[in-house]
Amino acid sequence: MASESLEDIKKTINERLPEKVQVAKIEFEGPQVVIYTKNPEIITDNGDLVRNLAKDLRKRMIIRSDKSVLMEPEKTIETINQIVPEDAHITNVSFDDVTNEVIIEAQKPGLVIGKYGVTSRDIVRKTGWAPKILRTPPIKSEIIGRVRNTILSSSKERKKNLTELGSRIHQSVKYDNDWARLTSMGGFKEVGRSCMLLQTPNSRVLLDCGVNVAGPDEKTAFPFLNVPEFSIQDLDAVIISHAHLDHCGFLPYLYHYGYEGPVYCTTPTRDLMTLLQLDHIDIAHREDNPLPFNVKHVQKELKHSITLDYGEVTDITTDIKLTFHNAGHILGSAMSHLHIGDGAHNMVYTGDFKYERSRLLEPATTRFPRSESLVMESTYGGHEDVQPSRNKAEKELMKTIYQTLNRGGKVLVPVFAVGRAQELMIVLEEYMRQGMIDEVPIYIDGMIWEATAIHTARPEYLSKDLRDQIFHMGRNPFVSDYFVKVQNINERKDIVEGDPCIILSTSGMLTGGNSVQYFKWLSEDERNAIVFVGYQSEGSLGRRIQKGMKEIPLENDEGRTQVYNVRMQVKTVEGFSGHSNRRQLMEFAKRIHPRPDKIIMCHGDPYKTVDLASSVHRSYKIETKTPLNLEATRLQ
Amino acid sequence: MASESLEDIKKTINERLPEKVQVAKIEFEGPQVVIYTKNPEIITDNGDLVRNLAKDLRKRMIIRSDKSVLMEPEKTIETINQIVPEDAHITNVSFDDVTNEVIIEAQKPGLVIGKYGVTSRDIVRKTGWAPKILRTPPIKSEIIGRVRNTILSSSKERKKNLTELGSRIHQSVKYDNDWARLTSMGGFKEVGRSCMLLQTPNSRVLLDCGVNVAGPDEKTAFPFLNVPEFSIQDLDAVIISHAHLDHCGFLPYLYHYGYEGPVYCTTPTRDLMTLLQLDHIDIAHREDNPLPFNVKHVQKELKHSITLDYGEVTDITTDIKLTFHNAGHILGSAMSHLHIGDGAHNMVYTGDFKYERSRLLEPATTRFPRSESLVMESTYGGHEDVQPSRNKAEKELMKTIYQTLNRGGKVLVPVFAVGRAQELMIVLEEYMRQGMIDEVPIYIDGMIWEATAIHTARPEYLSKDLRDQIFHMGRNPFVSDYFVKVQNINERKDIVEGDPCIILSTSGMLTGGNSVQYFKWLSEDERNAIVFVGYQSEGSLGRRIQKGMKEIPLENDEGRTQVYNVRMQVKTVEGFSGHSNRRQLMEFAKRIHPRPDKIIMCHGDPYKTVDLASSVHRSYKIETKTPLNLEATRLQ
Repeated sequence: MASESLEDIKKTINERLPEKVQVAKIEFEGPQVVIYTKNPEIITDNGDLVRNLAKDLRKRMIIRSDKSVLMEPEKTIETINQIVPEDAHITNVSFDDVTNEVIIEAQKPGLVIGKYGVTSRDIVRKTGWAPKILRTPPIKSEIIGRVRNTILSSSKERKKNLTELGSRIHQSVKYDNDWARLTSMGGFKEVGRSCMLLQTPNSRVLLDCGVNVAGPDEKTAFPFLNVPEFSIQDLDAVIISHAHLDHCGFLPYLYHYGYEGPVYCTTPTRDLMTLLQLDHIDIAHREDNPLPFNVKHVQKELKHSITLDYGEVTDITTDIKLTFHNAGHILGSAMSHLHIGDGAHNMVYTGDFKYERSRLLEPATTRFPRSESLVMESTYGGHEDVQPSRNKAEKELMKTIYQTLNRGGKVLVPVFAVGRAQELMIVLEEYMRQGMIDEVPIYIDGMIWEATAIHTARPEYLSKDLRDQIFHMGRNPFVSDYFVKVQNINERKDIVEGDPCIILSTSGMLTGGNSVQYFKWLSEDERNAIVFVGYQSEGSLGRRIQKGMKEIPLENDEGRTQVYNVRMQVKTVEGFSGHSNRRQLMEFAKRIHPRPDKIIMCHGDPYKTVDLASSVHRSYKIETKTPLNLEATRLQ
Repeated sequence: MASESLEDIKKTINERLPEKVQVAKIEFEGPQVVIYTKNPEIITDNGDLVRNLAKDLRKRMIIRSDKSVLMEPEKTIETINQIVPEDAHITNVSFDDVTNEVIIEAQKPGLVIGKYGVTSRDIVRKTGWAPKILRTPPIKSEIIGRVRNTILSSSKERKKNLTELGSRIHQSVKYDNDWARLTSMGGFKEVGRSCMLLQTPNSRVLLDCGVNVAGPDEKTAFPFLNVPEFSIQDLDAVIISHAHLDHCGFLPYLYHYGYEGPVYCTTPTRDLMTLLQLDHIDIAHREDNPLPFNVKHVQKELKHSITLDYGEVTDITTDIKLTFHNAGHILGSAMSHLHIGDGAHNMVYTGDFKYERSRLLEPATTRFPRSESLVMESTYGGHEDVQPSRNKAEKELMKTIYQTLNRGGKVLVPVFAVGRAQELMIVLEEYMRQGMIDEVPIYIDGMIWEATAIHTARPEYLSKDLRDQIFHMGRNPFVSDYFVKVQNINERKDIVEGDPCIILSTSGMLTGGNSVQYFKWLSEDERNAIVFVGYQSEGSLGRRIQKGMKEIPLENDEGRTQVYNVRMQVKTVEGFSGHSNRRQLMEFAKRIHPRPDKIIMCHGDPYKTVDLASSVHRSYKIETKTPLNLEATRLQ
């Protein structure tokens, strides 16, 4: 019912609210309806009233106070400090006088909210300000600071954008929804630059906008934005499934070239995406091969970001509702459920997903309200892609670490900053805490630390096990003393000259970054070990070492080429992937409920994509499609 | 080499022409290069020179005289009459002072051209005017008159359009031709409204633009012009495969809504298309259900038409060359060979085709210079679609006619105006001439006569047998005295009250037109017969009669409903189709040379399309695709 007009909605709200509520203003703010009132306390005290209204109107609703009833800021801070228990550890209070919200950052946000929201309601009642409560990450995150500052300082601009967006979304539907189709713009029969355009007679929505970081030129690295049906001007919305660059790396380009619309993602995705995009720009700049966008465009993207939690049904265009569901791939990774028209069609896009519980995350969702078509990844879709179980992989890794430490060696694990690194940290912390490997420092180098900090800011998105540890047992494994942040070259030198230890460092394929540096320092001592836990692409240094090359010529610290002899142990441990393996992909296609009429395969090498498609078709009698980039496939 | 600039071409031409030739101007006129000279005789006398130049430049070339050397019109006519033998029967001479051509219409145009062009060269030499020689149809055609008038009277406008088009086509290619794709806009997994958009990084070309005359509303009757990648403004060219409305019926709409580009087709297609489009507009108007375009837009279409003969290689955009080949379906029907980029890709679109020699036409071509992808029709693609041979069908028809005439009855053949009617005329003329059926009048009613007149204007497009009869034996079966044109209601009444005869009348499915009138008059006399030779669609009156319904309620002449008892013989003769049957489709896919990598099926019911696709795939191991409307398929 995106087409319900503001006037109709206003009427319903005014009819349903108790007479004594003085409604000052009702407006759309992006997909939400915002009610400004002079007696916020009446509404806040009647939670059910708003919940029922929201349910009946099928709208997300926010209550804010009218300016006239706001307490002055200094007094508000005092009041908040009186109301909120000290244990909450408030670290910052700021005011957004565009939205009339008071932003409270606290180490224990739960205590600011109070049981069933009692404390936060008290704040509204006493100060008029609507509290927006954020977690102060236990590990300081530079990115989260930056993101929160950008959001706060651009509040006026955001408000304007959201109001405009709100009126666009809530126009009436122009055309009958008698078809829907999907154009493959990148990441079909290939891995990298995931991008697809969902089109209905009324809407154009982009799902993911990635880059292939291994692509040698623009034509292979960037998605096909030149496909004739795509134009930045006509784009209504962008959805980002998760923060990896092959799904979001090209998004700033859209904002550079005139896109003024929203990007929808989960909060962790927004933060991790910002981290990875800025890093990507930085590396490209340092390598003198700049990208066709810069930091300004990441800023603009942030200003247009709208974050949604799993399960929040949201109007994103006149005829499309989006709901995110857990994908189990990395923190904040989401499957997108798109409800088109008034029940005309339902599509699910999995993004990258893991259909298995990991240390970090719950397994991907398989239950949806409806799902006539499914677009699913097929990275490990080949019938030979059966990795060992997570449990076996952990044991294998620990054995190697145990033996290495025992012989007085150091363990180097080159690892990708987001996802696998945190997964390993949880494993290492547990084994070490339980005394199954020696207590040695685990050095965390490069961007991993910052990515981990972001994980600590969003414990709600972690697995139930981890949430239990953090919320109920008060033990956050990420802040364990075992982990030591490495910040500069001197610290690194001390580490390699010091005692046995474990080092997690980027890049994961030794294609640059400090992992290469560590390798040079550690390779010639046979007591050391290097452990590969992720995919090493053809041509990378990681792959050459993995394959057993014993003499590696590299530039040394003096800028001269030097041959490094690989005397350290070289070990590969499979099973830590954030992707579903072949068996899990097949299981997912079988168990997704309701059963889709059509499955479109993406995100896989051609052979694997086709292999999975024919197996699914043969086993479950569901129509499967394996489109190429630049093809358009009917959904309905 | 569409990208060769006019400057380069001018340089080459000036270098290669003998010094004494005074070139006044060289310019692009659509896809052609036109040389204006003050000594046209020198060039005309050196035919090889121009042929070689054209070949080397890969351009079509025209030589015209500079204004300064033109003889005055009156004197020119005199001179022409002196040069051309009287036997040529010149019926009209007119002058186009935009192109400096003299248009000579004659009953025997071959005599105006002369052996190896000697007479026509003589005209140039003596008058300066370049002769454009047209056939005066032995049956007067109103449409051809109209078309020729429109073309002549809009000469200045056409010239301007063509010059602009010339400079567009001959721009340099902007982007690499690294992909090509085809969007299905109509007529995929269905029959009717054939329409597809070929897209390369540099061009947008529409192949056919038809209507489904049986479609109950706009959504099912018209092609999906609202597909996001299509915009009339960005369209470079339209190609029409043949004149049936399901391939060209929606073309005037494009000209109504701003299309200013060319439409390419053969000359018979242009004339027949004009006839059918005007009739369509007329019927829709009479039925008070007007089309979203009118006669003006057919006029505009004519002004933008560029006719090509089979085998003429023509640049139609900066990166696409078009060549038509015989399709054997109806007069002028063409397969389109599209050469994309400098050898990047070659696509063949069959349109509707008959891979069998008919009375009227040669069988469809199977040899192409290259053909990586093939888009073919699948109307009779079901494995049960095996019709009797043409020979058997003819015998069956004649038997029925023979018996009917023998018992003193009249034969009514409801028939579609273009194609099948002329095919039957040839058969009837031959059987009657050879005394195998009685000599009775064959009444030709409705649009059939006009369509036949157009056939007589273009004997070059007929089968070798017919051409031999017409050119060498001087006998044109279409002008046989057996055929009698019916023009009004009184003549019709005389016919039904008269002696045994044969009546060919539209519409072919008794959905309107005079065939219904004849049915009402003839149905209750058991000596008469009605013979169906074409497809009767579900729900049509023809189908009901064919299925054996004996009491038909219809409105009588007084406007009241009356039940007509079907006492006449009802007979169906299969095998006269202009489409290939299943066996011929399979044979075509097997024999097309070179063998394509990919075959895309169109123009067929879903089941038949898929049946043919899987049979071709299984039998010949060629990849086949059966896209839906609104899908886009990669060619390259």
